Amino acid sequence: MEKVAEGKTKIIYSMPDLEKVTLKFKDDITAFDGKKHDLIKDKGVINAAITTKLFRYLEKEGVSTHLVDLPQPGVMVARNLKMIPLEVVCRNIAAGHILERLPGFKKGDSFPKPIVEFFLKNDSLHDPILNDDHIQVLALANKREIAEMKRLALKTNEFLKPYLLKKEMILADFKLEFGRDSKGKIIVGDELDCDSMRLWDIKTGEILDKDVYRQGAPLEKVTETYLKCYRKIVGGEPK
Amino acid sequence: MEKVAEGKTKIIYSMPDLEKVTLKFKDDITAFDGKKHDLIKDKGVINAAITTKLFRYLEKEGVSTHLVDLPQPGVMVARNLKMIPLEVVCRNIAAGHILERLPGFKKGDSFPKPIVEFFLKNDSLHDPILNDDHIQVLALANKREIAEMKRLALKTNEFLKPYLLKKEMILADFKLEFGRDSKGKIIVGDELDCDSMRLWDIKTGEILDKDVYRQGAPLEKVTETYLKCYRKIVGGEPK
Repeated sequence: MEKVAEGKTKIIYSMPDLEKVTLKFKDDITAFDGKKHDLIKDKGVINAAITTKLFRYLEKEGVSTHLVDLPQPGVMVARNLKMIPLEVVCRNIAAGHILERLPGFKKGDSFPKPIVEFFLKNDSLHDPILNDDHIQVLALANKREIAEMKRLALKTNEFLKPYLLKKEMILADFKLEFGRDSKGKIIVGDELDCDSMRLWDIKTGEILDKDVYRQGAPLEKVTETYLKCYRKIVGGEPK
Repeated sequence: MEKVAEGKTKIIYSMPDLEKVTLKFKDDITAFDGKKHDLIKDKGVINAAITTKLFRYLEKEGVSTHLVDLPQPGVMVARNLKMIPLEVVCRNIAAGHILERLPGFKKGDSFPKPIVEFFLKNDSLHDPILNDDHIQVLALANKREIAEMKRLALKTNEFLKPYLLKKEMILADFKLEFGRDSKGKIIVGDELDCDSMRLWDIKTGEILDKDVYRQGAPLEKVTETYLKCYRKIVGGEPK
């Protein structure tokens, strides 16, 4: 297997079947456009398992994902998508940087309907927010594809919110990334885990996601948070 | 006539006919969320005349505006709209702060199609850019009204671009504000002049709008720029 690309938290390897790739989830954790960077024990194994569990459910709900298999802990076989360099964020509850952009909503306030936002993956421009015209002018996706990404983000939210609520977690917001398969179909790629969801314990309000790291918690506390999330979503202990 | 409201560049007075208001265009000029502020001789008279001229043409093109009459220089009678606190920007050519948000476009580059953007009028949040979901969640406009504002911005652009080109000016971008009439119809309000358009002389590239002020030109130079714009669009000298 040859390394094709390496991101902040994953390494992509080619496979003999060119329709597939292997994704190695790393233990690296980053924040603030990569300016903060550490290693969290078992993070790769935890996030790969959570993503796999959630993507399997999404497939059942009719949302296609790139997941093929999880042949070993932390290593996912996925469909080889042409990724679109956008972060598609769906928000149920006000948290994070939207608080600096939308007046009248405090942290924890519910939005009257879910908000879908598109951000360009571009650290040097600090991931600017884009509207539909920007996405088309940058030739990242056409009108139909933008509508499809919105539809899939909202459908994912409709499944994910009650699913996590049963596990006593509130889904404040989450981020998806999409790609095109060899036929041009828009498919959910990347991951869906403690790095890409804001999850709050419904009883204690405890943060169960990467925000503990952003907020400067000790790394042992971050590890413990990721483990809690694993136990709630996947069950048991990561091996 | 009673003063109803005063903005950075206009004063609104009530009228006996409650369906109408009087707008006094001030000589004040501001930039950078109001942090830079000066007076420009005859600016109110110039901008009121340019807005009146362009709004009359827009009406002929089927774009409803709040303009009723210009009974005296600098003083406009307008329909009394419930204004929507949004700035709707339409861009043909890359200029201004979009350069910090869209990679791959330098100042002066044409976009492959016009870009329409919505900004919240909120100086303390620095007029954040909003997408359709934000606008709905803030209850500023519904889906149909958002589409109507986009349609009217693009229709205005379609008229304005060739009209100004005949006067040897390139329309890089412009800003509209909208309101609702007593029946809830979306109508162009506010102004359309040297404060709200980016205009470049087609031959010399000379800036013919408020950017000369933003860029720190002496106030006499700013006055001269507004006068040039008046002569090109309205003709003659302001009285």
